[in-house]
Amino acid sequence: MIAVDVMGGDYAPQEAVQGALAAAQKGVPLILFGNQDKVMPLLAHYYPRWRSLPIELVHCADVIDMDEDPVRGILRKKDSSIVRALQAVQSGKAQAFVSAGNSGAVMAAATIVVGRVPGVIRPAIGSFLPTTTGSLFCLDLGANPDCKPEYLVQFAYMGYAYVRLIKHIAQPRVALLSNGHESYKGSMLVKNAFDLISKTDLEFVGNIEARDIFSGHADVVVTDGFTGNVLLKGIQGTAKAVMDWMKDEASRSLILKILLGLAYPLLRRVKNKVDYARTGGALLLGVNKPVVIAHGSSKSCAITQAIFFAQKTVDQKIMPTFNETLQVLLEKGKTTIKTVKLQPAMKQVQL
Amino acid sequence: MIAVDVMGGDYAPQEAVQGALAAAQKGVPLILFGNQDKVMPLLAHYYPRWRSLPIELVHCADVIDMDEDPVRGILRKKDSSIVRALQAVQSGKAQAFVSAGNSGAVMAAATIVVGRVPGVIRPAIGSFLPTTTGSLFCLDLGANPDCKPEYLVQFAYMGYAYVRLIKHIAQPRVALLSNGHESYKGSMLVKNAFDLISKTDLEFVGNIEARDIFSGHADVVVTDGFTGNVLLKGIQGTAKAVMDWMKDEASRSLILKILLGLAYPLLRRVKNKVDYARTGGALLLGVNKPVVIAHGSSKSCAITQAIFFAQKTVDQKIMPTFNETLQVLLEKGKTTIKTVKLQPAMKQVQL
Repeated sequence: MIAVDVMGGDYAPQEAVQGALAAAQKGVPLILFGNQDKVMPLLAHYYPRWRSLPIELVHCADVIDMDEDPVRGILRKKDSSIVRALQAVQSGKAQAFVSAGNSGAVMAAATIVVGRVPGVIRPAIGSFLPTTTGSLFCLDLGANPDCKPEYLVQFAYMGYAYVRLIKHIAQPRVALLSNGHESYKGSMLVKNAFDLISKTDLEFVGNIEARDIFSGHADVVVTDGFTGNVLLKGIQGTAKAVMDWMKDEASRSLILKILLGLAYPLLRRVKNKVDYARTGGALLLGVNKPVVIAHGSSKSCAITQAIFFAQKTVDQKIMPTFNETLQVLLEKGKTTIKTVKLQPAMKQVQL
Repeated sequence: MIAVDVMGGDYAPQEAVQGALAAAQKGVPLILFGNQDKVMPLLAHYYPRWRSLPIELVHCADVIDMDEDPVRGILRKKDSSIVRALQAVQSGKAQAFVSAGNSGAVMAAATIVVGRVPGVIRPAIGSFLPTTTGSLFCLDLGANPDCKPEYLVQFAYMGYAYVRLIKHIAQPRVALLSNGHESYKGSMLVKNAFDLISKTDLEFVGNIEARDIFSGHADVVVTDGFTGNVLLKGIQGTAKAVMDWMKDEASRSLILKILLGLAYPLLRRVKNKVDYARTGGALLLGVNKPVVIAHGSSKSCAITQAIFFAQKTVDQKIMPTFNETLQVLLEKGKTTIKTVKLQPAMKQVQL
């Protein structure tokens, strides 16, 4: 049973409801959390026989206003779809949670309701990004816009443990996203995180530039949630822009237009590679239960994929194994990290 | 006369020397700064009659070691190519400086040798990025990995003044790069900068996501140097990856391969759009003289383009006009900004 927040995301509840219906039609049992006055008519509209599907609907009265900070909203409004859905996961009624809502809000609520894995300071959002040779796991993609160096070290452990588990790589190579590959490059946050991660027994390959993440030189890329989010959306935006420019260039000549039309299956395959609608959400790592965060601009197809991903995570018992490994790693790493002396956050060369 | 640092960049001095030779052959008078024992043989190798070109060579003894922080190196080593070249610009012997060296080092040296425009806290690297409707100006692209909110406000003024001057837009729209378009999104730095920029009389259109920078909704995008650098290199990396994936997909079928071959002129035009080799460097804004920073991985062609760009900036008297406008804007903006109360750098909701 997957708990779905049908009120979260830019196109909620319409797209979330449609996405949930598609997943339920494929046999995934769901509990939807949202305002029944809005959700029920949509269910009936998109699939009149929706009551024949494995769908349960739980009414949640609270709505977090568009102009309020969702994280603060979560802490104040206890009858929101996010909080109620997480409570269902915590109680065991559902096994995983899917939301396209504000990722900061989901993280805050998950931390409170299902709790962090012992030793975890901050949970992080992680997802695989395509490379020219396969894929790499990048985190944090948005849960923590402000980070301390210790968080990044923990993200490194999370990425390491997750890639080991999912891709069966014995020693995943961990890199730190920076503004240059040299060890002296980076913000103070990155420089301090560099020193800390160097001291762990992880396979640390140093700084990596955003330009080189596609090259396959790393299996895990660690960054703060602000930069990770900019990187992810920058990749998506660029891929779309490149496609748009191609169409634009092609439109100037009939021959090019025909060529591009013929090459369309190829373009579509490339587009799918970077299309978040098909990757189906990212995992919130460091909390006790499976929480899948779909992109805020998710359309129904992305919601469906996120639900399938959550179901797969449950079926394969990913989280219990991952959380157990993470706890051991963090315990082991804690002592090493304490020995490193950090530089103050804004120390700079005086000019 | 353009002063060129031929020791800076990943492929220096070979590519820098070749790039300079190409520019000199087109009639741009140059003074090259570098180790003559290395540079002289290269000049003779690539262009035996180089003494017939408008090229002067100034020997600089100091070399900043690969493993030392270049910013600290600059402050200690006074006979480096960067410092000596900037001194030539300051004295009036040269009118602009071009370097593919470490951007932090160039900024530090420029701040010391040619000085900041009165009122400027930190100079910033700015460049135009392509959008689907034209281009936007983005800064900082790497000079300041750690920023305070006040720096970002100044970057907003710089971008505004530069775009007005270059693109003749009466009221350039200024946006702040963030992890969401909502006003409550962002790191503490971005949230504070948002409040500050809102108080100015700039045409502030709020937060912009990395995904939307290609959409043409803004003329100026402001960010810190770390994030800007990740964004820029992420765009370049993605564009390259998309091209690589297309070739890869095409290689699986003869028909697709032929199609892609026929569509090659189209692909090349798109590639050039995001290819920094052709944009020819970015301007360091906020210092008294024209300083052009080429990408660290610049090949000869990019160096040549950066020299042409520097020459154009000199010919069109861009910097004197820009600096005068900037000084007035900063003076006017200073009083507004002082009234805004900022939140502490790491304040977060306690979980």
